[in-house]
Amino acid sequence: MKYPPSLVALIRELSRLPGIGPKSAQRLAFHLFEQPREDIERLSSALLEAKRDLHTCPICFNITDAERCDVCSDPSRDQSTICVVEEPGDVIAIERSGEYQGLYHVLHGVISPMNGVGPDRLYIKALLPRLDTAREIILATGTTVEGEATALYLQRLLEPMGVALSRIAYGLPVGGALEYADEVTLGRALSGRQQLRRDPAK
Amino acid sequence: MKYPPSLVALIRELSRLPGIGPKSAQRLAFHLFEQPREDIERLSSALLEAKRDLHTCPICFNITDAERCDVCSDPSRDQSTICVVEEPGDVIAIERSGEYQGLYHVLHGVISPMNGVGPDRLYIKALLPRLDTAREIILATGTTVEGEATALYLQRLLEPMGVALSRIAYGLPVGGALEYADEVTLGRALSGRQQLRRDPAK
Repeated sequence: MKYPPSLVALIRELSRLPGIGPKSAQRLAFHLFEQPREDIERLSSALLEAKRDLHTCPICFNITDAERCDVCSDPSRDQSTICVVEEPGDVIAIERSGEYQGLYHVLHGVISPMNGVGPDRLYIKALLPRLDTAREIILATGTTVEGEATALYLQRLLEPMGVALSRIAYGLPVGGALEYADEVTLGRALSGRQQLRRDPAK
Repeated sequence: MKYPPSLVALIRELSRLPGIGPKSAQRLAFHLFEQPREDIERLSSALLEAKRDLHTCPICFNITDAERCDVCSDPSRDQSTICVVEEPGDVIAIERSGEYQGLYHVLHGVISPMNGVGPDRLYIKALLPRLDTAREIILATGTTVEGEATALYLQRLLEPMGVALSRIAYGLPVGGALEYADEVTLGRALSGRQQLRRDPAK
């Protein structure tokens, strides 16, 4: 007994998605088989329409369906600060924090020699002309090994260019118990401690 | 800043898939955005073609693209034994074990009062006319609570009907889904099945 070819094709296409192995793809395919035709057509159209409508903003490389993304086309944003992030999802995460009023630059990845991703595969070159108007660059790549390596690469690249450079703070996540923090995070949280009251003796 | 509508639509459709929450759907959407147009079109077509070509076999309710499924249309299969399983994926799992030569009956679910699934929502009624030609029914639902309850329901339903009844052996780890069992365990579970009611002809 064999799977019908169109089922095999669907399982193969689904298993190309990240984090979905052959078993999950099979489960997904069976689930989809049970769904009404309208649901499948809606998913299929959503895929095609997203691919048709969406592209990267020519300035910051965030995802947009307009000529420029919402942030780049908003004159009330602080034009002198650029926050460099790995992925478009990071922009939304930072926007949700409500703490940031500047612009973004989306690298679309991290430097990862293990996966054959060098700096030339990321939107790094396009960041350089933006330094003419920027006064501060915030390096907000992740705190993974690759995120750190990418931040270090950018730091060395941008240091000679006369802009203020910063890296997002390391520390405990808000709401986290000290007891459950890993040693490295706790070490960084301690060494990066912020003064609440100056030593009166000094 | 807001997501473009076509990105929102794609994330919404993806998050309707089982086991994919809003965060995973967002990651998947960004991943799909980075893929070449051909890949998206292939996934989209695979969805539509699977929905167009596939249906359930009118005899055993396995997934097929033909009039009858491969098993039901194969005269060399043992027509006197029917193995009752939860899902089409279970058929493939049992076929891989190579231990079974009979027919199948796919319930397309399990009895689950918690999820509002009663016996009438499964392909149970359609099993009854098949008892005319069958001598043994193997209950091969999973060893989850719902799988056990479904097997018990079928046992009580079929016991008065004069067929031999068996339940696959507890070679499977209790609490495990049939689909994830390895071939050897599954083969042992089948060959070690235990009789619930003796064949009255013997």
